[in-house]
Amino acid sequence: MAKYKLIIAYDGTDFVGWQKQKSGISIQGELERALSTILREKTVVTGAGRTDAGVHAMGQTAHFSTKKTDHIQKLIYAANALLPKEIRILHGEEVDGSFHARFSAISKIYHYRLYLGKVQLPFEKRYSLHIKQTIDLDLLKKATLSFIGTKDFRSFANEQNKGCAKNRPIKTIKRLDYIFAGEMLTLQFEGDGFLYKMVRNITGALLKVARGKMDLSMLPQMLMSKDRKQAPECAPAHGLFLMEVKY
Amino acid sequence: MAKYKLIIAYDGTDFVGWQKQKSGISIQGELERALSTILREKTVVTGAGRTDAGVHAMGQTAHFSTKKTDHIQKLIYAANALLPKEIRILHGEEVDGSFHARFSAISKIYHYRLYLGKVQLPFEKRYSLHIKQTIDLDLLKKATLSFIGTKDFRSFANEQNKGCAKNRPIKTIKRLDYIFAGEMLTLQFEGDGFLYKMVRNITGALLKVARGKMDLSMLPQMLMSKDRKQAPECAPAHGLFLMEVKY
Repeated sequence: MAKYKLIIAYDGTDFVGWQKQKSGISIQGELERALSTILREKTVVTGAGRTDAGVHAMGQTAHFSTKKTDHIQKLIYAANALLPKEIRILHGEEVDGSFHARFSAISKIYHYRLYLGKVQLPFEKRYSLHIKQTIDLDLLKKATLSFIGTKDFRSFANEQNKGCAKNRPIKTIKRLDYIFAGEMLTLQFEGDGFLYKMVRNITGALLKVARGKMDLSMLPQMLMSKDRKQAPECAPAHGLFLMEVKY
Repeated sequence: MAKYKLIIAYDGTDFVGWQKQKSGISIQGELERALSTILREKTVVTGAGRTDAGVHAMGQTAHFSTKKTDHIQKLIYAANALLPKEIRILHGEEVDGSFHARFSAISKIYHYRLYLGKVQLPFEKRYSLHIKQTIDLDLLKKATLSFIGTKDFRSFANEQNKGCAKNRPIKTIKRLDYIFAGEMLTLQFEGDGFLYKMVRNITGALLKVARGKMDLSMLPQMLMSKDRKQAPECAPAHGLFLMEVKY
């Protein structure tokens, strides 16, 4: 058996998310279908994280094992020809048998893109959240500081489907800052792991503070409460990108 | 009568082009429909240039006249609400009665985006041409020089539909250079006017030289021939953006 690591980009707009579902087209399902066709054996693809419906990726990472030994570049070429154009395998390499896309990951980087222009460009509507209200960058900066470090993030995690193993709620956000280019404000998150909808829930809270709709001092209280109901609503999926998984 | 200038962005992918056609959805048609609905009078929108099917715009410019005097910002807001999301009016202002979107234009800026990465990102596939072959930037630079200046560009112009007035074939390209950011190579054209498919035809020729498929010395000969058949094929529509019209 040979094991391969893949780096994958996708436009999540028209998919039910990374994970295979009973109905609808998933990224994982499409990858497994393409690889199973080429390798002529049932192939299971394991991702580093389960991105939700509508969430995009520039650097999702996955692994699969196969009995067939083939040239990985040829395999990627063939898989990209079979995959929908919204999914592209960018890179592939053989890895040690102990490698696991999810469990070997040291950290993940997510970006949340906010378009602050008066009118949203048509090219950005699938890939950013349009914010029409004024954003106070100083308040935003201060708000990010509440989330950096090792904390219990239960207030910023949605319940996963029943049957899923509960994640440990204590996570470390190593970095949470932003870059501002043109009219695009990009929030950059790096952490050792993220709970279900955690990046989008934190983004929702950051925006509420930065728009002056909630006091900055509420954030530590929310974290302390460990109660999802205390924190503001989730930011929508289409602004979120899984950028990189570090190993 | 009041006259207004509009700056418009659009994702041209799913349109038959700027100009109204017997069948299919055009940018001009959608704008006229939205403005006519709001103003409750037949409104004609005149664009600076007729972009083809699949060509995008960040700064198409147009004018229209109306008997109704209304607040232009309110009008834009209402029009954007009626328009398909692929078309956005970015800006509007009242102009003098002598202003004409096409005839008053001093120059136009077009960009042609070339994606040089090994695998094209899904986010770029609608907005750039994927070039898998090696591009020689030195040859590209030299090739652009053949097109700069005042020349007869007939060899790089397709025939327009019968019934259209023939354009004067002598045009001035003031600027033709490129920027290279990440894996995106953007050709930048600025000229006093462009013949039908001229930017895409020049791009086709530049690429042929830069890929080493045609000798640089062929370009002056092609221009001299004033014969479209002597020049290479047109680059596809989806890499092209009308960026700005200067007045």
